[in-house]
Amino acid sequence: MDQRLNILTLGVDDVRRATEFYERLGWQVTFTDGDIVMFQAGPMIVSLWSRTKLAADSGVASSGSQWGGFTLGYAVGDAAEVDAICDQAVAAGATLTSSPRDKGFGYSGIFADPDGHTWEVAWIRALRRHDDGTVELPA
Amino acid sequence: MDQRLNILTLGVDDVRRATEFYERLGWQVTFTDGDIVMFQAGPMIVSLWSRTKLAADSGVASSGSQWGGFTLGYAVGDAAEVDAICDQAVAAGATLTSSPRDKGFGYSGIFADPDGHTWEVAWIRALRRHDDGTVELPA
Repeated sequence: MDQRLNILTLGVDDVRRATEFYERLGWQVTFTDGDIVMFQAGPMIVSLWSRTKLAADSGVASSGSQWGGFTLGYAVGDAAEVDAICDQAVAAGATLTSSPRDKGFGYSGIFADPDGHTWEVAWIRALRRHDDGTVELPA
Repeated sequence: MDQRLNILTLGVDDVRRATEFYERLGWQVTFTDGDIVMFQAGPMIVSLWSRTKLAADSGVASSGSQWGGFTLGYAVGDAAEVDAICDQAVAAGATLTSSPRDKGFGYSGIFADPDGHTWEVAWIRALRRHDDGTVELPA
């Protein structure tokens, strides 16, 4: 697993309220499907999504658990790489919270590190991946 | 405030255990003072630090609160810019959890967004800041 972070998804109670807060700070939404909101933040992506949906998607309890309301994203080039990195993480001591599987956007698996911080390893069809490991939302 | 994230600091129960986990994933420590551990992760930095110390530093309760055990870092060029962005964030609806002040490494202020996610706006003397908004730990 390379030393990089491509996407930070923040779980929020109200996506609209959170979006408006970041807009007041001067941020501009790069992409939204009306559910998740994504900001191209230089070489990476910061997303806002319903905390309960993010927890369900990440395979963790949204409250009363160690989980902190965010998921880190690591973008790869194909499904086989997702499988390989999830295997490597489990061998290193991670807990697989969502087994690798097809998703609407591509394919992903999610693991929690020893402190419960979740990483989604994802092949995202629409995402542009650069040679330097950075990512870009399509225009 | 520009649309970027320079540092992600993960609060962990045991810095050594967490470091060894990420090392087993293939990551290599870029800097440590024996307390905080920093990985240069492409154009940004991922850090591991004691969850209780991070909470105390961020001005939040380490458990039983909305706080999720991580703090986002936004690097700027001087103390005046820290003050200005903290003022802007509060005007946008943030809660200042740690007023801007001198720190050993420079100067910083910390605010929580409407969901309790904390941002440290920091002038860090030793950090190399590039024109494209990315950051680099000194060699």
